[in-house]
Amino acid sequence: MSGFPEALARAAATVEARLQAGIAALPASSVRDAMAYAARGGKKLRGFLVLESARLHGLAPGTAERSAAAIEAIHVYSLVHDDLPAMDDDDLRRGQPTVHVKWDEATAILVGDALQSLAFNLIAVPDAALTPEARLDLIASLAQAAGGAGMVLGQALDIAAQSAACPLTLEQITALQAAKTGALIEWAACAGARMVQADTAPLAAYAGALGRAFQIADDILDVEGDAALAGKRLHKDAEAGKATFVSLLGLEGAKARARDLVAEAEAALAPYGSEAHLLREAAQFVIARRN
Amino acid sequence: MSGFPEALARAAATVEARLQAGIAALPASSVRDAMAYAARGGKKLRGFLVLESARLHGLAPGTAERSAAAIEAIHVYSLVHDDLPAMDDDDLRRGQPTVHVKWDEATAILVGDALQSLAFNLIAVPDAALTPEARLDLIASLAQAAGGAGMVLGQALDIAAQSAACPLTLEQITALQAAKTGALIEWAACAGARMVQADTAPLAAYAGALGRAFQIADDILDVEGDAALAGKRLHKDAEAGKATFVSLLGLEGAKARARDLVAEAEAALAPYGSEAHLLREAAQFVIARRN
Repeated sequence: MSGFPEALARAAATVEARLQAGIAALPASSVRDAMAYAARGGKKLRGFLVLESARLHGLAPGTAERSAAAIEAIHVYSLVHDDLPAMDDDDLRRGQPTVHVKWDEATAILVGDALQSLAFNLIAVPDAALTPEARLDLIASLAQAAGGAGMVLGQALDIAAQSAACPLTLEQITALQAAKTGALIEWAACAGARMVQADTAPLAAYAGALGRAFQIADDILDVEGDAALAGKRLHKDAEAGKATFVSLLGLEGAKARARDLVAEAEAALAPYGSEAHLLREAAQFVIARRN
Repeated sequence: MSGFPEALARAAATVEARLQAGIAALPASSVRDAMAYAARGGKKLRGFLVLESARLHGLAPGTAERSAAAIEAIHVYSLVHDDLPAMDDDDLRRGQPTVHVKWDEATAILVGDALQSLAFNLIAVPDAALTPEARLDLIASLAQAAGGAGMVLGQALDIAAQSAACPLTLEQITALQAAKTGALIEWAACAGARMVQADTAPLAAYAGALGRAFQIADDILDVEGDAALAGKRLHKDAEAGKATFVSLLGLEGAKARARDLVAEAEAALAPYGSEAHLLREAAQFVIARRN
């Protein structure tokens, strides 16, 4: 059995190459250059989940690469827009200046917009390896996970929370994060099942627990992490007086909850047996990671 | 024969209802409210073109409504992002405060992002009236028309022009506008042909001439128009010292060129005979309009 870190690194290289090829196929412009810059690096965990869930469903290597690149295009677009001064106002991302710092705000807005279009184009263009019905299902579910019922809804709730009179409850933060980061992680984990019209329930349960563990780990990292390793600004939540899983559960309580969720994620993979060992290791990884 | 103004008004009502239904189906949030606000009003010319090209290809009424709502969702997203302070910095749109003025910049960014997702969702969800292959072709071509090879490319060229040492040439402005506004208009006019896998060439030629006439008319309106009727700020280009079709061709020269393009657009419709009379009237309309 090969380990998860190697598998993640291989997936990251494959997915980034596919995404960069999509960007390179566009006509030359400052926006294209900035798209290529923004798409560089990162863990590509969502892309890995797409490839691995496709492998679990018996799909040939390569079949899922466009979908994996698509979810990373959506993820990168969300980071570029999130980093804007009107949003989280971050100067640093993946250890490099953010797009609006290196170029300007207008370019960063357009980079996000064009990356979102590219994501849907990657899945919609002719591809004999998947049925048209499967590709339409992937596109509809991705549009729902990314839009006003998914990621953007989570961001809207996050903005509303910042001007709310009292900090969010645990239940409210859980709902906010389920939309903001959970929807894309769920889409990624379920993509392989969608490709062959199989049941998405076990992978959706896995992704739900994984996504919550991921967000708790993010909150822990924001308190305990090393900014140089993380490649982004830390301690933002405490400075902003925001309620987080750590502020609500305490540091030890948050760590215990994250461990429980990882166990829940692993249990959800039972139908896949030992074939799912990389997804189990991925769940362990999200609470052990340093960035 | 019913006239174009009535047909456009009917199409606008149909397309707006379909778009608002898509927005209303999202969970409640400030972003959803602002999406509904931004989608209100406007000519809905692109949506009309989709419905009319579908009718020309023998499709039943209703078949093309989701695609018509989708192109308007893309158009509205582009207006909301274009109006942002980092882009064109406009306070007024369709006679009302722009989204970032009425809400805030973060909401306006998210409104545009969620409208783009909604556009692809509208075409991707199950729909027995069109084949899966036709819907994938509509999605792929819409993603290309909207993204870094289409509308966003045009916006990137526009930004680059603002910091260029010398004003653009006629050829450069034509290329810029073909991407910035032409790509969506071409997609709209060709949508009906795509729905039945028919030849898109005549409608693409029509849309190419129509789009150029539309942009020249916009430049003329910016000089001669009434801001109250137009519902947006005028005289921006002259203030910014930007090269336009009017600055390059003169007012009379621009009007003559627009008339030639309308004749070209009408001629391209020859294969459709008298059935295309509303598209011919639409071409007349784009150079006669006051907003």
